[in-house]
Amino acid sequence: MNRPVVLISLESPHSFWRLSAEHEQALAAAFPNVEFRTATEEAVPHQLAEAHVYFGWTFKPSWLFGAPHLRWIASPAAGTDHLPVAEAHSVGVALTRSYGFHGRPMAEHAMGMVLGFSRGLFMSQLAQRNRTWWKDDLAEEFFDLAGATMTIVGCGSIGGHLARAARSFGMDVIGVRRTPPVAADGGISWMHTSAVHQAVAAADVVVDLLPATRATDRFFDHDLFTAFKPKSVFLNLGRAATVDQAALLATLNTGHLRGAALDVFDPKPLPARHPLRLHPRVVLTPKSSTLSRTYMNEAVAFFADNLRRYLTGQSLNGLAEVPAARFPLVGG
Amino acid sequence: MNRPVVLISLESPHSFWRLSAEHEQALAAAFPNVEFRTATEEAVPHQLAEAHVYFGWTFKPSWLFGAPHLRWIASPAAGTDHLPVAEAHSVGVALTRSYGFHGRPMAEHAMGMVLGFSRGLFMSQLAQRNRTWWKDDLAEEFFDLAGATMTIVGCGSIGGHLARAARSFGMDVIGVRRTPPVAADGGISWMHTSAVHQAVAAADVVVDLLPATRATDRFFDHDLFTAFKPKSVFLNLGRAATVDQAALLATLNTGHLRGAALDVFDPKPLPARHPLRLHPRVVLTPKSSTLSRTYMNEAVAFFADNLRRYLTGQSLNGLAEVPAARFPLVGG
Repeated sequence: MNRPVVLISLESPHSFWRLSAEHEQALAAAFPNVEFRTATEEAVPHQLAEAHVYFGWTFKPSWLFGAPHLRWIASPAAGTDHLPVAEAHSVGVALTRSYGFHGRPMAEHAMGMVLGFSRGLFMSQLAQRNRTWWKDDLAEEFFDLAGATMTIVGCGSIGGHLARAARSFGMDVIGVRRTPPVAADGGISWMHTSAVHQAVAAADVVVDLLPATRATDRFFDHDLFTAFKPKSVFLNLGRAATVDQAALLATLNTGHLRGAALDVFDPKPLPARHPLRLHPRVVLTPKSSTLSRTYMNEAVAFFADNLRRYLTGQSLNGLAEVPAARFPLVGG
Repeated sequence: MNRPVVLISLESPHSFWRLSAEHEQALAAAFPNVEFRTATEEAVPHQLAEAHVYFGWTFKPSWLFGAPHLRWIASPAAGTDHLPVAEAHSVGVALTRSYGFHGRPMAEHAMGMVLGFSRGLFMSQLAQRNRTWWKDDLAEEFFDLAGATMTIVGCGSIGGHLARAARSFGMDVIGVRRTPPVAADGGISWMHTSAVHQAVAAADVVVDLLPATRATDRFFDHDLFTAFKPKSVFLNLGRAATVDQAALLATLNTGHLRGAALDVFDPKPLPARHPLRLHPRVVLTPKSSTLSRTYMNEAVAFFADNLRRYLTGQSLNGLAEVPAARFPLVGG
C-alpha cells in the first residue's frame, strides 16, 4: 500500500496563519509513514490528484472533481460555512473544522469590547478630540461589570471561555443553547433557545456566538432587539447572517442600546458611508476576534491529533454538521 | 460630655458619590451616641464651628481656622494630594483617605485600556470611519494577553487588584515598589524601585499607579520611557505629575510605544489642540477610573469602621502620610 499523501496549503501574509518549517518538520517526525506535500493555492488542484488528505484554509468545490483519492478535508478555521461541506459529503469526503483554541483570543476580544463600553473608553476616544471634559456624561453611561449579567447566545466551547473571563470580573452569565446541559456548569445559568427573550431581557451584555444555519438566519431581529434591557450592549462575534442589521440600527437609533461591537457584518467590508461605520455607538472590528500569535501551533496540533485518529480508524473531531456525517474512516 | 458631632458634606451631581438618606440612617443607627449633621459646601465653614469630625469630598485649608473642635478629616477619596494634609497636621487634625474598594473599578478600567490596544479595538474605532479594511494592519499590531507581561509601578493594594485581573488573562505580573514584600505574593514578581528600568524593559504593558510625591515627580521621564520594550503600552491611572508628558509624546512619536491611555494629565482638562488629545495612539479618560455605582456604599462603610476606631481610641486607617502622623485619637 502506498503511503498516505497529505497535501497542505496554508498560505497567509501573517506568520501566525502560515505553516512554518518547524510545523512541517514536527509533522514529518510524528508521522514517518505519511508523505506530506505543501502547495501554493495555484498548485493545489494539480497536487490534489494524488492526495488522500488536504489541510488548508481554502477549498473550492470544483477541486473535488480532480481529487479521486481524497477522503478528508481538514480546515484550521473554527467555522465551515465558507467550505463545500455538502459537496464534499455528497462524494464521501469528510470535512473537519478546528476547535478548542479559539476561545482564548475571542474571550480577550469580547471582554475588550465589553469594557470599551462599560468604562466609557470608546466614547472617550471620540470625545477627547472634540469635547473639553466629558466626565459627567461618562458617569451617566458607565456600568460596573461586577454584578452585571452577560447572556451568551449560542454558548458552546467558545462561550465557555468567554463565560470564565466574564465571571472573573464578577459578572453573572446566562448561556442560551438548543441543548442546554442538564447538570450545573461551572457558574453558567443555562436557558433553552425558546426562552431567549427572557435571557436577553436579564442581560447588561448580550453576545451572539451563533453559527450561521437556516434556523439562525436573522435570529437577532426587531422583536429580539426590543426585548433587550434598555442601555444594554450587543456584541456579534459569530456570523453576520444571524443579525438583522436594519433592526440593529433602528434599535441603536432609539437609544435602546448603549452600544454594539461587531466583528462580523454584511457585506464585508461595509460600504464607506454605511450607517454602522458612522454610528457613534458602534465599534467594528475586521473579523479579528480569533487572531492569536499561537494560532497555527494550535491548529497544527489539532490536525496532528485528528490525523492520528484518521490513520487508526477512529472518528474525526470537528466533523462539519451534515446529516449522518459521522462515519469512521481508515487511512490510505 | 457632649455627643461627638460629625459633619458630612458629600454633594455630587452623581448619585453614587452622594450621601443618600439610607446612608444617613444607617450611620445614625450604628452610632446612636453621635450627632450627625449634613451641610452643603456653602454651609460647611459655619457648621465646622461645632464639629469634631468632618466627612466630605472637599476641605479648604482656611476652614481649619473656624474649626476649633475638629480632630479628624475623613475623605472618601483614594488620594489626599488635593487636601490640606500638612496644614491639618500642623494643628493636630488627622486626615484620612479611603482605600480597599477602588481596586475593583480601576482593574476593570485598566484591563479595558489594555485590551483596547491589544485587540486593536481603539485603532478599529478610528479606522472604521476612514478605511475600507484594516485587518492586515491590525494583525501586525495585536498581541495576546496570555503570556504577556504587565509591570505595575507603585504596586500596592490597587495594583494587587489589577494584578489579579491581568493574571486571569494569563499575563505575568511584575510589581515595582520601594518596599517589595519579602514572601512570594500570589503570583506577582516583585522588584525594587531601583530596578525599574529592568522591570519596564520586560513588560508589554506598563501601568503607573504611583502617588504624587516629591520623589515621584516626573518619575516617567525620557530615560525611563526609552527603556520600555518596543511596542509596549503605557497606562497612567495614578497622578499626572509622575509623567513627563513631553517625554511621553516624544516616545510615542518615534513609534517606540504601541500606545498610551491616560486617566490623568496636566492640565486637567487639556487644551483643545494639545498633542495628547490628537495623537492617534493616545486614549484619554476623564479621571474616571474609580467610577463605581457602589462607591458611596463602600466609602460610608469604610468611614463607619474608622469612626468606630476613632470613638474607641484606636488608630485610624488611611492616615495621610505626614511624619509622625500616627497618633491615637479619642472621641469627643
